[in-house]
Amino acid sequence: MPKASAGPEIERLIQLLARLPGLGPRSARRAALHLVKKREQLLTPLADATRAAAERIVTCSVCGNIDTSDPCAICADGERDGRIIVVVEDVADLWALERAGILNARYHVLGGVLSPLDGIGPEELSIAGLVARASEPGVEEIIIALNATVDGQTTAHYLTDSLRHLPVKITRLAHGVPVGGELDYLDEGTLGAALRARTAF
Amino acid sequence: MPKASAGPEIERLIQLLARLPGLGPRSARRAALHLVKKREQLLTPLADATRAAAERIVTCSVCGNIDTSDPCAICADGERDGRIIVVVEDVADLWALERAGILNARYHVLGGVLSPLDGIGPEELSIAGLVARASEPGVEEIIIALNATVDGQTTAHYLTDSLRHLPVKITRLAHGVPVGGELDYLDEGTLGAALRARTAF
Repeated sequence: MPKASAGPEIERLIQLLARLPGLGPRSARRAALHLVKKREQLLTPLADATRAAAERIVTCSVCGNIDTSDPCAICADGERDGRIIVVVEDVADLWALERAGILNARYHVLGGVLSPLDGIGPEELSIAGLVARASEPGVEEIIIALNATVDGQTTAHYLTDSLRHLPVKITRLAHGVPVGGELDYLDEGTLGAALRARTAF
Repeated sequence: MPKASAGPEIERLIQLLARLPGLGPRSARRAALHLVKKREQLLTPLADATRAAAERIVTCSVCGNIDTSDPCAICADGERDGRIIVVVEDVADLWALERAGILNARYHVLGGVLSPLDGIGPEELSIAGLVARASEPGVEEIIIALNATVDGQTTAHYLTDSLRHLPVKITRLAHGVPVGGELDYLDEGTLGAALRARTAF
């Protein structure tokens, strides 16, 4: 990256910002300049917020969520329905489901999906932990909420095999037309799945 | 913005990141998650870098550049040609010219351009400071390097009027075809300017 000619502090800030997803070298420079211009409103608060996050955020040893407490707020929440565990690939997916606000269950973050090409096998994922949790008394259903990609679905099949010996119901998210989606823009796989899973009006 | 369900520290981080240019609410969430996952490599260094920048970066009282010293490294550099002052709108423009590495002059950051609609008049810009610097002995040329926009060119004319009584040469950047540019994609104004300013082969 070419120099920004504003001293090593700014250079360092630009380099770190450029490593964030969604920011390249040029936008990192714009962002750094914006930060420096808005020192009181943005730069100092961001310094405080990153420091606080670095010091306080931990990974939940139960479900793999990130929070400031271990177990996380969701695992520690007595109001949550302990009969259902929702398996997600990543914390971002957990957040997405929580934002939707349609579930009151607990989660299990796998930390990825099986991907032989990337060297990610069952040992790299939190599968043993899931089987252990699914074996606990009171657990009735495991909802596999992985992405509808090839790797996601391969992992879903592997999980189903790993959990089959347990007395729990294993379900997965439905495929179909996204709400607001237009048929013309959907692929054949989605249309086929939506047709096969059609429901009575 | 919907909650990310990961405690106030993450929420705060997302909110601040979302205020950076180039990041929206969704990409700020991705960036925050990426930061938290790469705590040692990214989050802690970013906390240190933002803190260092917030504490050490100052605005140069001579030219308006930002740096860790006042006067800035460029103004304090005895090797720079003090006969030429390059007027730019913004620190980002100063950086762009420095990256090009074609000048060894000093700069003057206006801090914006005249824009009556936005309530930006001559008093809001660092014009008095420019006139004072241009009046100093030894200054021979003021290069007006403002954007080729309507506001930029209006400001350039205003600056020319403000500096006309001084014994300095006032120049501006040439208009023309950008290097690597294709005529087919250029507007008529640029083509006209390039044609009028044609040079002998």
